[in-house]
Amino acid sequence: MPTARDIVDQLSRLLPPERVLSAPSDLEHYGRDWTRQVAPAPSAVVLPGSVEQVQALVAWARRTGVPLVPSGGRTGLSGGAVAANGEVVVAMDRMNRVLGFDAADRRLRVQAGVVTESVQREARARGLLYPVDFASRGSSQIGGNIATNAGGIKVLRYGLTRQWVSGLKVVTGTGDVLDLNQGLVKNATGYDLRHLFIGSEGTLGFIVEADLVLAPQPPEQQVMVLAVPALEALMPLFDRLRSGLVLGAFEFFTDQALSHVLAHGGKRPFQGSAPFYVLAEFDADDEAALACFEAAADAGEVADGVVSQSRAQAAELWHLREGITESLASRTPYKNDVSVRIGEVPAFLSRMQALFQREYPQFEVVWFGHLGDGNLHISVLRPQDMAADRFAAECGRVTRLLGEVLHEMGGSISAEHGLGLLKKPFLRYVRSEEEIALMRGLKRVFDPDGILNPGKVVDL
Amino acid sequence: MPTARDIVDQLSRLLPPERVLSAPSDLEHYGRDWTRQVAPAPSAVVLPGSVEQVQALVAWARRTGVPLVPSGGRTGLSGGAVAANGEVVVAMDRMNRVLGFDAADRRLRVQAGVVTESVQREARARGLLYPVDFASRGSSQIGGNIATNAGGIKVLRYGLTRQWVSGLKVVTGTGDVLDLNQGLVKNATGYDLRHLFIGSEGTLGFIVEADLVLAPQPPEQQVMVLAVPALEALMPLFDRLRSGLVLGAFEFFTDQALSHVLAHGGKRPFQGSAPFYVLAEFDADDEAALACFEAAADAGEVADGVVSQSRAQAAELWHLREGITESLASRTPYKNDVSVRIGEVPAFLSRMQALFQREYPQFEVVWFGHLGDGNLHISVLRPQDMAADRFAAECGRVTRLLGEVLHEMGGSISAEHGLGLLKKPFLRYVRSEEEIALMRGLKRVFDPDGILNPGKVVDL
Repeated sequence: MPTARDIVDQLSRLLPPERVLSAPSDLEHYGRDWTRQVAPAPSAVVLPGSVEQVQALVAWARRTGVPLVPSGGRTGLSGGAVAANGEVVVAMDRMNRVLGFDAADRRLRVQAGVVTESVQREARARGLLYPVDFASRGSSQIGGNIATNAGGIKVLRYGLTRQWVSGLKVVTGTGDVLDLNQGLVKNATGYDLRHLFIGSEGTLGFIVEADLVLAPQPPEQQVMVLAVPALEALMPLFDRLRSGLVLGAFEFFTDQALSHVLAHGGKRPFQGSAPFYVLAEFDADDEAALACFEAAADAGEVADGVVSQSRAQAAELWHLREGITESLASRTPYKNDVSVRIGEVPAFLSRMQALFQREYPQFEVVWFGHLGDGNLHISVLRPQDMAADRFAAECGRVTRLLGEVLHEMGGSISAEHGLGLLKKPFLRYVRSEEEIALMRGLKRVFDPDGILNPGKVVDL
Repeated sequence: MPTARDIVDQLSRLLPPERVLSAPSDLEHYGRDWTRQVAPAPSAVVLPGSVEQVQALVAWARRTGVPLVPSGGRTGLSGGAVAANGEVVVAMDRMNRVLGFDAADRRLRVQAGVVTESVQREARARGLLYPVDFASRGSSQIGGNIATNAGGIKVLRYGLTRQWVSGLKVVTGTGDVLDLNQGLVKNATGYDLRHLFIGSEGTLGFIVEADLVLAPQPPEQQVMVLAVPALEALMPLFDRLRSGLVLGAFEFFTDQALSHVLAHGGKRPFQGSAPFYVLAEFDADDEAALACFEAAADAGEVADGVVSQSRAQAAELWHLREGITESLASRTPYKNDVSVRIGEVPAFLSRMQALFQREYPQFEVVWFGHLGDGNLHISVLRPQDMAADRFAAECGRVTRLLGEVLHEMGGSISAEHGLGLLKKPFLRYVRSEEEIALMRGLKRVFDPDGILNPGKVVDL
């Protein structure tokens, strides 16, 4: 492998020199994502401006054996975009143009580096909606969203990113440019490679362009936050709300999670408190909301609650849920992101609670998540007096136990954060040996030289 | 390869002998699908009753080199389930049990041989909807629907089969059993093999079980049929209806298509006639429907129309569109099933009309389809005095010309019927050489011995 010096020289002949970065601050900035668990150590960072430049980089990597790490907004939480071993980071920041809009197809064609929030804004400007949404919308890029099949807070109504991608342009690990599905609704012509790239975390190819389908704007939304006295009430409440309202989100957090948001400037939603809270978003309907609330109160499922009466209030209520991650960020928590089938949520929650009480007696564990999708986020906080190494080892040990529970229940050890570097060791709790072998076979087809994001998802 | 006699003997030791069929009528019945273009010639037919039996069949096929053709309801229109070369047909008819229902997940677990209409009925019995629907619902099986990613008449609102499959159990070409995604909403753990099997036409593995997600029942639906005086009015009318109504279907047929249905007992919807008709289904709303109709009439987009006032009338109107295929069946038409992006529909329709007027002056060409998805079905009728061979050759020639038009416009030569045997020769008009090479690579990963549905989709 060439030296870092040689690498920068060679790359500066492939790309305009100002698109090749090697200052220590750049290497650190572009070499890591939001996981903050792995020390970044790329050889260089490049900012290609065209598909041809991406192809040239792939050809160079095959020639030299220096691997490439595709990089979007680096808001990932599993280390999928981390470059820790002298790789070259290929950041899509300069491929950030909207390429076109087709009103009949409600189709927005974008380059991979467009920020998620910009896609949402572009959709809104056309009276439409890009419905994939999550807290890191202001930094994450659409290419990364597709590479991880991003989920978020509106999956209940709109599904995951996968559902909104009608075309993809990719550059494979052999440098081929593929124009996949071309924005068609129907195209039954063999294996749908588009769906293979969605969620592949940059290990099969670079996503360089995408056709996004936009949805009609939904009616005005309202938000309610409800205080839930017992774990057992959560799923009956979910069932009640999805029967009585047109539900778009059913989010969940504990009183402990709320206390962190309140400590960071969040506003208490009502006087009463309870061990659990639910945030529900729905097609505005005051009367139906009140009826649901009253019935839930009568059934003992809720102890208190509030329904938004303005957009500003809805945003405030959303902040109680969306602000959790940020309120914990300074503690760099160890994170689990797990899912089970919706029907398994109550059983899983009790087993998880018992596990944590047994295994984490000394740690603060904050949990919250997208309960309507069976998806729970768990943040374990390191005691101030514990060394980071020992803490990580402990959390890894308990994650393996959690993996066993999930394996037994048919759940997943990574619901929406991908495998990256951090979750890959736990893959066998979700996917069988046969599946993992097949995934390796696929990797060999698309990236025979192993130059794309090595060490992530599967090994060659 | 063993003789047909040997094959039957060997299979009768693997499966209960009554599950091995070899009578000429069985070979003919199970050896073909609705295409009726290729003479069936399987060596035997087997009806496995369990996943283990399917595995045993795969192991046997690898040992003997006798290929297997997975077979559902055989309602396909591209020859994907045809066994024309001494293969063994593996019909899923006896794996037709509903395995379970989970109310919280709205998840129905079924074996692959359950008939589509039974799935719809099972959903309805639980107050829910299985929203994939098409004319062959009474015969087609869910495994075949998944293997072809079936579309149909409700794609506009509900998408294709892909969207409703949250888990798949498959037996690969190496005999491995994979339990894919297990009914989870969110599972970001590497390449989603489930989506690779969906639409793979039985060339990568046998689909043996599936988790289907059911939708809430929609509100009461109404249907309108509108007479459209000119091709140019179609897409403005689509835009008007999808703005003014909650639209679930936007179907299209020509006056010529209608005349075939009327000749087969269909009921004329209104006195007036027009060169084109549109059938729209929407959330019942008489007032909005009338407003749309009046505005469309004022704009010259419609000349006449009717809105259903009862379910019976809605079904009668639907028959005008759904009855077309049946009304032409006795003529065994040559079929094209093409798609373009919705915005390209008007340009495509004019180019297609010009092409057919030039190349098919002597043939009757009937066209209709799912215009809201950019999907058009074309049936070319053989003149009584023309030999079948010459007719097929002529249609093949014109299909290549049509393929060139579609290639230029970024469309597809098979929108929802799959490639099978009949469309495979036209694959290069939709998928690049690089894509086809990658598809071959995938085939090698899942079916290295080439024992699964050989000759379909791609060659090994």
